[in-house]
Amino acid sequence: MTRYWAEHALLPTGLASSVSFEVAGGRFAAVTANSVHGDAIALPGVVLPGFADCHSHAFHRALRGRTHHGGGTFWTWREAMYAVAARLTPDSYLRLATAVYAEMALAGITSVGEFHYVHHQPDGRPYTDPNAMGEALAEAARRAGVRLTLLDTLYLSGGLSADGHLALSAEQRSFGDGTVERWASRLARLAPDATTRIGGAIHSVRAVPRVAMGDLVEVLRGRPLHVHLSEQPAENAACEAFYGCTPTRLLHDDGVLGPLTTAVHATHLTADDVALLGDSHTTGCFCPTTERDLADGIGPARALRDAGSPLSLGSDQHAVIDPFEEMRSLEGHERLTSLERGRFTPNDLLLAATAHRSIGWPDAGRLEAGARADFVAVRLDSPRTAGVDPGQIVHAATASDIDTVIRDGEEVVRGGRHRLGDVGRLLTEAIAPLWEGA
Amino acid sequence: MTRYWAEHALLPTGLASSVSFEVAGGRFAAVTANSVHGDAIALPGVVLPGFADCHSHAFHRALRGRTHHGGGTFWTWREAMYAVAARLTPDSYLRLATAVYAEMALAGITSVGEFHYVHHQPDGRPYTDPNAMGEALAEAARRAGVRLTLLDTLYLSGGLSADGHLALSAEQRSFGDGTVERWASRLARLAPDATTRIGGAIHSVRAVPRVAMGDLVEVLRGRPLHVHLSEQPAENAACEAFYGCTPTRLLHDDGVLGPLTTAVHATHLTADDVALLGDSHTTGCFCPTTERDLADGIGPARALRDAGSPLSLGSDQHAVIDPFEEMRSLEGHERLTSLERGRFTPNDLLLAATAHRSIGWPDAGRLEAGARADFVAVRLDSPRTAGVDPGQIVHAATASDIDTVIRDGEEVVRGGRHRLGDVGRLLTEAIAPLWEGA
Repeated sequence: MTRYWAEHALLPTGLASSVSFEVAGGRFAAVTANSVHGDAIALPGVVLPGFADCHSHAFHRALRGRTHHGGGTFWTWREAMYAVAARLTPDSYLRLATAVYAEMALAGITSVGEFHYVHHQPDGRPYTDPNAMGEALAEAARRAGVRLTLLDTLYLSGGLSADGHLALSAEQRSFGDGTVERWASRLARLAPDATTRIGGAIHSVRAVPRVAMGDLVEVLRGRPLHVHLSEQPAENAACEAFYGCTPTRLLHDDGVLGPLTTAVHATHLTADDVALLGDSHTTGCFCPTTERDLADGIGPARALRDAGSPLSLGSDQHAVIDPFEEMRSLEGHERLTSLERGRFTPNDLLLAATAHRSIGWPDAGRLEAGARADFVAVRLDSPRTAGVDPGQIVHAATASDIDTVIRDGEEVVRGGRHRLGDVGRLLTEAIAPLWEGA
Repeated sequence: MTRYWAEHALLPTGLASSVSFEVAGGRFAAVTANSVHGDAIALPGVVLPGFADCHSHAFHRALRGRTHHGGGTFWTWREAMYAVAARLTPDSYLRLATAVYAEMALAGITSVGEFHYVHHQPDGRPYTDPNAMGEALAEAARRAGVRLTLLDTLYLSGGLSADGHLALSAEQRSFGDGTVERWASRLARLAPDATTRIGGAIHSVRAVPRVAMGDLVEVLRGRPLHVHLSEQPAENAACEAFYGCTPTRLLHDDGVLGPLTTAVHATHLTADDVALLGDSHTTGCFCPTTERDLADGIGPARALRDAGSPLSLGSDQHAVIDPFEEMRSLEGHERLTSLERGRFTPNDLLLAATAHRSIGWPDAGRLEAGARADFVAVRLDSPRTAGVDPGQIVHAATASDIDTVIRDGEEVVRGGRHRLGDVGRLLTEAIAPLWEGA
């Protein structure tokens, strides 16, 4: 039994003072407010639950600050993304993802949902171990100290036009398994462990023809299922032109929606779409810093929540890895369109940032007895956080104000340092080779 | 003569390598790319010009993370703002502003434009020295190591309705001088010095009746003149109802617009407003993190720039003090409304963040011989900046990645530490008393 103590903590009941955390076997044995410090290990500032990053493409981190020359367009970004994907190998992806997940750990993230689609060699041939890439990601997460849900992604088609689904382009060959059966048999060889879970994903209605969806849903029953949904108006237009309905309606009619399903982005929705997602309790995963960076637009987060959809958050392309920034941007984007403050309370935002359930870890994300012992201590004495109400810390802190991160009772970050050492160096060493000669 | 050297720097000609900076008498004697390191003082990462924070209300920093309980509305915020204003004295404001300007210095800001309107005692009586508050701000900036432009603000009326201007409310009495003549005579007693300039401001068309504008313009001739413009649709509606025109048209017709004038926010504009501002080369000062936090909306930044208005940036209410965040948000808000990336190039964003000219320091903000020796070294090895192209650093860095800040040749920040020591402690000690018993 290890005991920690903090002056402030955000418990499910709200802000509490003088809180002790008893940890045994990786779980909270007790969380007690108004308790004495005694010989407990002191945590600075205010303690929050560990964050869940529910939508990650780890390799996109290599694109940060590299796609804006002359301003940058969506196509600048996409070309760069394909170029980096083509250079990844299980070894280089292990190095890169270890560094990226360590950056996440520094930002207070204790679970990550990796929407993984770079399965094969650049020419499309499987590696000797067909799950070499997925296994590299799981190993990277173990090294970095975060739990991983591998959302192994089905990617069959290169796009959707009014005439139907297109073949994969040369750059997309490494993403495709060819058929839902081959994807399923590869998936069956992936094994969960104490810090790894296996879920699945439909890349999007563009990349997965309707005919494959029922089988995929069957394979994934009882496990997290994620899908990119209506990120760009072009997806909606193509879906309407070929299928005669919105992407949300298509997913609904094919049995994809439901409480274990997460719709990622959900940006360009009709009122009917919002009702379908809400009624089915499908989670809406917003990635506000990405949706801003990629000029996707602002999705109806508050309307979805009001309709019945839980919300979660993801850093997606990792232009930024900072759950505070995602929380504030979720609220901020609502403010920019509604011209109203307080669309979400600080507690609403924290619930979205700790929605581990959306990636299959329902017993994480709450500071209460029985839950996984994930907690994050945020300093209240930095230039950013000094003077703020600890109960409103989500409106002031940044990732760089995090002092301690503990996952399943294990110290991953202490004094703002990751147990692997210098994460900036790990990132530089992993990213530089991917751009050599590019 | 002091010589510095950096591996990367953003010069007016673009990204340069192996750059030496020779500094004498507070100015750059030479800035030379492709030069040897020799015995120069090494700066880490990439060197940028010092930033200009062109719109600050220093005391609003005390509201950070304190106006969001239960979500927060604009009125929650405004009540808290008036409550803090009522507690300020020249002594407490000196303490608070010193800490806030030190936070700015840590964020790379070397000039600040303080839109100052808390002139008098809470009941409206002047202090013995009627400029005690303004002098406190100037002294705070000297201590913190930033240049200050005191934009001494005329505030005569409590608001505007269809029937005309309202009297000051009880909470607003400390803001008002009563007449433009009394404001002008107070202003005349303020003296500039090496790091202080005196400009002026019209609070807004709500707070300054039309009849006073001509006199104010005359008093300020040749000096910076700032004005809050169309931040909320309600201002436009009141102006139309009483004056029969938009606030921009009113300012234009009264001779307020021009190249030494800065319109702050400029959020809700007509096409005609944009043309009037652009044709007169009035600067548009955007405060994106504030405009998001206060749910003001998204102003037409790109359209204004295209029409002829230079752009500048301000942190305004200081929900965030981070010029990188303001730069990215200026671009990001454009992306969210236009659904296009690359509305501004990284260099456009840097120009807006270094528009010292907008607050009367035209010889600052460029890394070139003859300019004021303001420079900021940003680390390229942090978890946020590792792996990025130094030329696109504005899309990746945060204030916490700044290592060194030099203003007029004087080292203010080194190794991420301000010369005054622990800025978090200064902020806590200044802010806590303002909320005691509140």
